[in-house]
Amino acid sequence: MLIVMKPQATEEDVRRVCRKIESMGYRPHPMPGAQRTAIGITGNPGPLEPAEFDTLPGVAEAIPVSKPYKLVSREVKNEDSVIRVKVGDSKDSFVTFGGRELAVIAGPCAIESREQAFAAAEKVRKAGALLFRGGAFKPRTSPYSFQGMGEEGLKILAEVRRQFGLAIVTETIDPENCDLVEQYADVLQVGARNMQNFSLLKRVGRSPKPVLLKRGMSATLEEFLMAAEYILSEGNYSVILCERGVRTFADHTRNTLDLSVIPAVRHLSHLPIIVDPSHGTGRRDKVTPLARAAVAAGADGLIVEVHADPDRALSDGYQSLFPDQFAELMAEIAAIAGVLGRTTAQSTTGVRGSGLGVRG
Amino acid sequence: MLIVMKPQATEEDVRRVCRKIESMGYRPHPMPGAQRTAIGITGNPGPLEPAEFDTLPGVAEAIPVSKPYKLVSREVKNEDSVIRVKVGDSKDSFVTFGGRELAVIAGPCAIESREQAFAAAEKVRKAGALLFRGGAFKPRTSPYSFQGMGEEGLKILAEVRRQFGLAIVTETIDPENCDLVEQYADVLQVGARNMQNFSLLKRVGRSPKPVLLKRGMSATLEEFLMAAEYILSEGNYSVILCERGVRTFADHTRNTLDLSVIPAVRHLSHLPIIVDPSHGTGRRDKVTPLARAAVAAGADGLIVEVHADPDRALSDGYQSLFPDQFAELMAEIAAIAGVLGRTTAQSTTGVRGSGLGVRG
Amino acid sequence: MLIVMKPQATEEDVRRVCRKIESMGYRPHPMPGAQRTAIGITGNPGPLEPAEFDTLPGVAEAIPVSKPYKLVSREVKNEDSVIRVKVGDSKDSFVTFGGRELAVIAGPCAIESREQAFAAAEKVRKAGALLFRGGAFKPRTSPYSFQGMGEEGLKILAEVRRQFGLAIVTETIDPENCDLVEQYADVLQVGARNMQNFSLLKRVGRSPKPVLLKRGMSATLEEFLMAAEYILSEGNYSVILCERGVRTFADHTRNTLDLSVIPAVRHLSHLPIIVDPSHGTGRRDKVTPLARAAVAAGADGLIVEVHADPDRALSDGYQSLFPDQFAELMAEIAAIAGVLGRTTAQSTTGVRGSGLGVRG
Amino acid sequence: MLIVMKPQATEEDVRRVCRKIESMGYRPHPMPGAQRTAIGITGNPGPLEPAEFDTLPGVAEAIPVSKPYKLVSREVKNEDSVIRVKVGDSKDSFVTFGGRELAVIAGPCAIESREQAFAAAEKVRKAGALLFRGGAFKPRTSPYSFQGMGEEGLKILAEVRRQFGLAIVTETIDPENCDLVEQYADVLQVGARNMQNFSLLKRVGRSPKPVLLKRGMSATLEEFLMAAEYILSEGNYSVILCERGVRTFADHTRNTLDLSVIPAVRHLSHLPIIVDPSHGTGRRDKVTPLARAAVAAGADGLIVEVHADPDRALSDGYQSLFPDQFAELMAEIAAIAGVLGRTTAQSTTGVRGSGLGVRG
Repeated sequence: MLIVMKPQATEEDVRRVCRKIESMGYRPHPMPGAQRTAIGITGNPGPLEPAEFDTLPGVAEAIPVSKPYKLVSREVKNEDSVIRVKVGDSKDSFVTFGGRELAVIAGPCAIESREQAFAAAEKVRKAGALLFRGGAFKPRTSPYSFQGMGEEGLKILAEVRRQFGLAIVTETIDPENCDLVEQYADVLQVGARNMQNFSLLKRVGRSPKPVLLKRGMSATLEEFLMAAEYILSEGNYSVILCERGVRTFADHTRNTLDLSVIPAVRHLSHLPIIVDPSHGTGRRDKVTPLARAAVAAGADGLIVEVHADPDRALSDGYQSLFPDQFAELMAEIAAIAGVLGRTTAQSTTGVRGSGLGVRG
Repeated sequence: MLIVMKPQATEEDVRRVCRKIESMGYRPHPMPGAQRTAIGITGNPGPLEPAEFDTLPGVAEAIPVSKPYKLVSREVKNEDSVIRVKVGDSKDSFVTFGGRELAVIAGPCAIESREQAFAAAEKVRKAGALLFRGGAFKPRTSPYSFQGMGEEGLKILAEVRRQFGLAIVTETIDPENCDLVEQYADVLQVGARNMQNFSLLKRVGRSPKPVLLKRGMSATLEEFLMAAEYILSEGNYSVILCERGVRTFADHTRNTLDLSVIPAVRHLSHLPIIVDPSHGTGRRDKVTPLARAAVAAGADGLIVEVHADPDRALSDGYQSLFPDQFAELMAEIAAIAGVLGRTTAQSTTGVRGSGLGVRG
Repeated sequence: MLIVMKPQATEEDVRRVCRKIESMGYRPHPMPGAQRTAIGITGNPGPLEPAEFDTLPGVAEAIPVSKPYKLVSREVKNEDSVIRVKVGDSKDSFVTFGGRELAVIAGPCAIESREQAFAAAEKVRKAGALLFRGGAFKPRTSPYSFQGMGEEGLKILAEVRRQFGLAIVTETIDPENCDLVEQYADVLQVGARNMQNFSLLKRVGRSPKPVLLKRGMSATLEEFLMAAEYILSEGNYSVILCERGVRTFADHTRNTLDLSVIPAVRHLSHLPIIVDPSHGTGRRDKVTPLARAAVAAGADGLIVEVHADPDRALSDGYQSLFPDQFAELMAEIAAIAGVLGRTTAQSTTGVRGSGLGVRG
Repeated sequence: MLIVMKPQATEEDVRRVCRKIESMGYRPHPMPGAQRTAIGITGNPGPLEPAEFDTLPGVAEAIPVSKPYKLVSREVKNEDSVIRVKVGDSKDSFVTFGGRELAVIAGPCAIESREQAFAAAEKVRKAGALLFRGGAFKPRTSPYSFQGMGEEGLKILAEVRRQFGLAIVTETIDPENCDLVEQYADVLQVGARNMQNFSLLKRVGRSPKPVLLKRGMSATLEEFLMAAEYILSEGNYSVILCERGVRTFADHTRNTLDLSVIPAVRHLSHLPIIVDPSHGTGRRDKVTPLARAAVAAGADGLIVEVHADPDRALSDGYQSLFPDQFAELMAEIAAIAGVLGRTTAQSTTGVRGSGLGVRG
């Protein structure tokens, strides 16, 4: 059930509806929009009676929602969500996902040392990226592979933020681990293998930090959106979706990047979606063409692996761009963004995004 | 590196090799076999020098291991592993996975009430099953679906064990939750969506209870075995693999059951493998034919959903067998097992399995 | 539209309905059943008016058919179709597909020489197979691979029939080629790559010979049945379906054998379905377990590659069974067939199959 | 084996090598390049001795070729192939595939009437397309679906060429049918379902007309290139590859468009590759984003379904663009092409393409 308020409804009207929902034992999710507020209801075991609500003051309509996803859907919130991420340590500086600007996250697969992280950070910052990626906890197929530096790596990331004014995107791998990671990260990343780790989804849903949710290797669009729904249903509405390739029979890339999911998400959901062409292809020479393609297909940003010295990387070096390649990529996607009436985020100060983004 | 001891090697010879490995900073995994003991080494960053070991007393051979999986592989342990599960509350009564006998786990998808659990338990026990399945914690695609009864459900399962003498197989969904579940379960189930939840794998790897590990929806055989390797590398060697269907384009079943993985696992690993035809097909009318097929392909057992009243089940009722169908299935698989020189476990007392199973 | 005649309807009643259909510009397909005749209509651009037909003498019902497949469906013909194939050169000796008996087709992938064909034929005949497979025209991924012996190979197959009393199953690769192949074959095989070669389907649909139709590598069940529908719609109702594995991400076998398609076909269609575990797995050590599984899942037969000397085969030798392995397989599937109340066809004379098979 | 000639080698040197190859019973494929000629050899059963050739006058090198594809590979011909297609009925007017310019093919799925074809042709010509698509023979999943107008449709296509100066791209469905289609088409299309119809591949390989080869629904890159190899090995080097989506578990589009195949083809082969976003997505609202993405990923062109009145189309109307949408698409891809240093072909006269294209 979705309660759509009238444009002229008052704050008190909204609160009254919420109280009503709570009194029935369910959970209200007020979502203020540009024109008017909508209120999602979760926790109800079955369909509700519209008449319970549409007779209350300020209510325009009570719509039974048939889709399994509610809070992530455009039925509940029609305007694009614009997720703001604080950049660096200054207060009024941030980057947005889901507005006119494309956000680019770049950095190494894993943090391997202070030196390595700083070398990469300097390069990606110089090329114009405002967000830095790098894993301190790495989910690895083999128990014998490098599993990340742990908290040591998180501390290096914190230094990167201070030194280079970059926002930090890093992965959290289980609920307990999240307690630690959210102290350091600006954006919590949930990896593809954990897309249906529901305990973790609930945990990041209670975090104040935005969440970057990667699509699982064999997740349908519905499952992907339902995973995001888990996070929103716990109260965290700042979710950035990320396509990173799905598993198919094709063997010329590690995964098959499914760019059609971009317009498909846009159609169904208000959440922003970015693309990871590094894991999506698994090979350096395909990263740039597919990154360009992602932007042309309408992605709200990219997450790209860049290593100052890829051949010495401890993990996934063969899919990391060289710094020069990344700088070239930034120039190309800026040009393509322009064709779609968008720009790439380049500066780090000033209020950006109105909370109600317009997409090309 | 794998150290193969001579048949006549003494206990002290084995201990000496283990001490040597520990002194190098690695971890020894002695695995006693019928003829002789093999010792796996984990924790080493790269290849070791065979000469360090094959000059020690009692050592037959030091074999460099090239495959990414070690402890799960037949190179490390050639004989089939036979996993013993205590049945009911008596001490010397158990059922085995991986030996001559087929083990059948049956019961409802989720525990919904004491009444429902008891009704199912009575039926499956009567039809000859010795292990009872039923989820108290359910990983569900939607946050709004029934998520299980929680500890209440576990308590009902404990009653089922006492009342019917059935061993309990139930799912654990995150490391913290495992603390609770392992107090009640005889076998800890790790679901398909958690096959690469490495934090959970490590946690169950430190449990004294056997683990039923389901294959992920898009897991390759190597990834499946590496997930098991995580568990073994933490010291728990009692892992039962379970094929439950993979995700493909085919839309006449919910998943495509990949029975060819049975001989493939058998070739590479000493671990037992069973099949879940309920989730593997998602439709009641296909469960029995595919269950028969699994046994004919050489599976070490089955896990089957049975509900005393499937049409009223809160989850996945359409794939649960009626009790009569299950009884018929038990008769059919007993006959097919006979063709392969195997039997279905029928009684619950007496020492069964020699620790070194022989497969047909 | 499907016209179901009354049990007591006369031949003339049936002819009258057919004339009516023809007079409307469509095509009637009378299909005599055990109890009564049904008449399918094809060629109509859209739904027809039931009242046009159910007022005619002898008509019980005129049923609008909603499924895209008509002639292959159980709605049109409820009884299992039993396809009879003449065995050897004697008149009253045949083998059936779709009845109580399982039919086994065996032989080398490609005919390479008279000597090779005879060696294989002798072995498979001795082990109890009544149908011989062997390609004279081979569709090969590479234009530089051995493409088969052509008509020379067909002549050798004719000799095999005379010498060993085996029915010949061999592939036809295009409509023109079918003119030649049908002179030699007892069963025309349409390969997986040609499952949607509609020109070829129409051509074999006009042949008097039964057709073995292999499922395409990425064909859904509906596409598979619609390919068969092409053949039936041209008037040839003797179609044997064959599952041979589908393409998935899984890399431990060449294809993933989808045995769940057996009960799914059985539910929707009256046509028999057999399984090819050789192409379905691509590896010798998996052929026998999957062949057993296919029979246990309810397959009406098998097509298996057997080579007297697999290591010297010009194509696909690594998936061919040795003669001894095949003999053992025949014994195992006979035992499993027994569990399902079926038998394997063993002798070559006597009228077998009533036209209205009963399946276990 | 590949014979690379010296830059200064004479015509007679090339002929001498070819005669030598023929005398050995094999087939020479001289391929003149910008700098020098290479000569492929096919028909040899196994590796040849380099010394047989590299001692002949004018020969720089004799390279053993290990890949299964030869003639399509960059090892044999390093420069991009530029395929020229005559446009309209004038002699010196053509469009190119594989050079700096993008080629766009547009038109309805099937030719339904002269009126419908002309309406679409006028619109797509006006928007800047130089090639017209439209099926006269349609391979359809159901035998009861509209199968195309046949030769009547081809005649309408010929009128479209005369009237609008558009080159005609249309599908041929079997070898015999090709005799007819090649009289009317400027480019012969081989559909996805026929990608491994080897009889058809051989037939179009003997045609003087360029061939548009669509990737099969589950074809690996190697199989795709080998299908092209069949065509080249018969002497027709004018092959345009076309990605049209592959079959995966994802259900939000009809197929999953695999744009990573573009850089992958570019790396291995000299042949041009275009993209079909209409069949690749199956839904109108995803055609434009994916078409832009294809160009950004480096595609050499597009084939797009445009219907003057999609809602009335007899086949696949829901994936056809409206004329206005197509005009907008043309503007967008021209802008994106500019970012990559390419242009969209806009005029129809003058010699375009040097035979040695340069790609951005």
